[in-house]
Amino acid sequence: MSIDINLTDERPSFVTHLDCSISGETYPADQVHGLSGAGRPLLVRYDLDGIRAAVSREEMTARPAGLWRWRELLPVRHVADVVSLGEVETPLVPIPVSGGPHVLVKDEGRLPTGSFKARGLVMAVAMAKALGIKRIAMPTNGNAGAALAAYASRVGIETIVFCPEDTPEVNVREIAMQGARVWRVNGLIDECGAIVAEGAKQGRWFDFSTLKEPYRIEGKKTMGLELALQLGWRMPDAIFYPTGGGTGLIGMWKSFDELEKLGWIGSKRPRMYAVQAAGCAPIVKAFEDGVEHAERWEGAHTVAAGIRVPKAVGDFLILRAVRESGGRALAVEDADTLAAVADCARQDGLLLCPEGGATLAAYRRARAEGLVSADEEVVLFNCATGLKYPMPEAPNWLDRTQPIEWDRL
Amino acid sequence: MSIDINLTDERPSFVTHLDCSISGETYPADQVHGLSGAGRPLLVRYDLDGIRAAVSREEMTARPAGLWRWRELLPVRHVADVVSLGEVETPLVPIPVSGGPHVLVKDEGRLPTGSFKARGLVMAVAMAKALGIKRIAMPTNGNAGAALAAYASRVGIETIVFCPEDTPEVNVREIAMQGARVWRVNGLIDECGAIVAEGAKQGRWFDFSTLKEPYRIEGKKTMGLELALQLGWRMPDAIFYPTGGGTGLIGMWKSFDELEKLGWIGSKRPRMYAVQAAGCAPIVKAFEDGVEHAERWEGAHTVAAGIRVPKAVGDFLILRAVRESGGRALAVEDADTLAAVADCARQDGLLLCPEGGATLAAYRRARAEGLVSADEEVVLFNCATGLKYPMPEAPNWLDRTQPIEWDRL
Repeated sequence: MSIDINLTDERPSFVTHLDCSISGETYPADQVHGLSGAGRPLLVRYDLDGIRAAVSREEMTARPAGLWRWRELLPVRHVADVVSLGEVETPLVPIPVSGGPHVLVKDEGRLPTGSFKARGLVMAVAMAKALGIKRIAMPTNGNAGAALAAYASRVGIETIVFCPEDTPEVNVREIAMQGARVWRVNGLIDECGAIVAEGAKQGRWFDFSTLKEPYRIEGKKTMGLELALQLGWRMPDAIFYPTGGGTGLIGMWKSFDELEKLGWIGSKRPRMYAVQAAGCAPIVKAFEDGVEHAERWEGAHTVAAGIRVPKAVGDFLILRAVRESGGRALAVEDADTLAAVADCARQDGLLLCPEGGATLAAYRRARAEGLVSADEEVVLFNCATGLKYPMPEAPNWLDRTQPIEWDRL
Repeated sequence: MSIDINLTDERPSFVTHLDCSISGETYPADQVHGLSGAGRPLLVRYDLDGIRAAVSREEMTARPAGLWRWRELLPVRHVADVVSLGEVETPLVPIPVSGGPHVLVKDEGRLPTGSFKARGLVMAVAMAKALGIKRIAMPTNGNAGAALAAYASRVGIETIVFCPEDTPEVNVREIAMQGARVWRVNGLIDECGAIVAEGAKQGRWFDFSTLKEPYRIEGKKTMGLELALQLGWRMPDAIFYPTGGGTGLIGMWKSFDELEKLGWIGSKRPRMYAVQAAGCAPIVKAFEDGVEHAERWEGAHTVAAGIRVPKAVGDFLILRAVRESGGRALAVEDADTLAAVADCARQDGLLLCPEGGATLAAYRRARAEGLVSADEEVVLFNCATGLKYPMPEAPNWLDRTQPIEWDRL
């Protein structure tokens, strides 16, 4: 029935095992896993020599575009476990006026459920299906819950989602429409996460919090794989990434390493800029303090709800990638974020989400501070469609039954 | 800078001329045109022999996916006039539970500004740029105005948009964010159109109403081109298309003819089902009455605002395509549309817009009435992202400071 061979052809996964991101201790593939024994995220490892022998980058390029083209580099072994709502290759849109002549926005709002969360959740849900998980719970600021609900409902897995009480209405309703039971909670995302953790301990459900299961990161790494392919197997000079839990940044950094070991890209890496809001900047503080772990950020507040994450379980992985890359962690004020969203929409016709706007604001600051030069190629990640977020009123009203004052129009 | 060769390579357009859709009278290419002298839409014609000699369908398939791969079959002659916000090839998503085992949704919500209107407007704006038009006005139920604003702002063309006063807030705000001047009007879309027509007569702007300029239809026809390519150069058995102005239905029907003349598809055509709301069904009435033109539908009302079009200038072209195809025009009740949206989201994880929901409701009716059999391959057009539309409340609230009643969750 489906006409996309990425969804119908049997292709081997080259997963060998998982290992702990802090101790290196190994864990077997094809089993249900949460965090490692050391309480840290697990990373999925592959037989890269096997992949190199099985598929060339030219063959990869010739496949239909989309997330599931990367099957050898993903953990799902059998085509019967692949789930899909149409994970298109997201476009790179130049924003020459509001950004600059070498600034590209990777517009992740084109994915199912309108955000990059689809990448992580399509993979995690496919693996949950493969491993026989029947009930999943998750804390979310909105978009992750929507993606979980959509994919899980599609494969008949039950979902319970907890979100901060001020999560935008559109997100909460979308989650419910897509078949999850969704609860608003009087707390922030890590406090919602505590409820999920307690329920998981009681055996009520499987905990799908960011990085607490190992497969979301594998889905998110396709951002890096896709970017390399789209740029003709080279890297941009810098990437600005809106950083809450940081799965995507960690995933991309992992993917670049895999691509180099495959011989598909060289040793050049983009400088990774982790972008946070001034009202919730634990990674920025840890970066500036020169420490490896971030403290919980108290009183977190920002218009960019997706990066309102006071405490990230993968903090040390984010900081490690940023430092190794020669990048930085940058905090931006909400006012600059909103100005960037408005400028990009009005000048370049592209409506960013606030988190995407934060990356443009951070890029502008980095240019002003001389961290990035005008001729460097830069990719900003717009993590969701701007249509899910509040926009200013447009109050013009015209009474057609009265004579029209044409010059006012 | 851009890495998509569809946007950077010079490729010839094979436009030869335009002709009137009712009289056949010809008009020169590369000039500004509105309706024909007979007051009817103009259709763009191509040197199909030239295209056949210039490019094979295999070469076409090998290009990067997206709307601008079809350059030879589009009116824009010079790459400098191409405008783009990343017009991805929209995915075909199976909906096996809420639809059936052979039902695919073409999810047009992945396009820039979240709707299929981007296809028509990207082309019309590119041609406006090529032809030196500086100021454009348009009546809209929302999505067309958003697409116009985005593309026109990107190339520095001024836009004025008029919409019915009950147009959803998100649409009006999106239009304003993207740089247009937008007015709510106490009337329906054809009454907004009258204001645009009057202003155009006064020389204040160019009239971009549906089918009143000839290039939107060329952009919309890429739905048909893309579908043929995605299905391996064959046609589905039936297409269900939400029909307001009908540009897309007319455009697809035109594209199939062009593809057959190129030898890229055979003579098989899908049955075209024009889907309208019971509260605004002028095409259905004309179809059932056996007439060639539709009367204005008085008192139009439906939750699917995009198909609340009381009078379509291309009515005879819609009716002609539907009749030639062996299809029908079908009206569906709002309650069935909303039930279809809810079922598809909950069962298959895909959130349709109301107009997309109407096509699923119409498909179900067509199955019940025996118009379509269970083993026929059917494509439903979801014309916009469901995220732009109202959704039911999800009222669950949890106080984390109190003991949790786990069994309620």
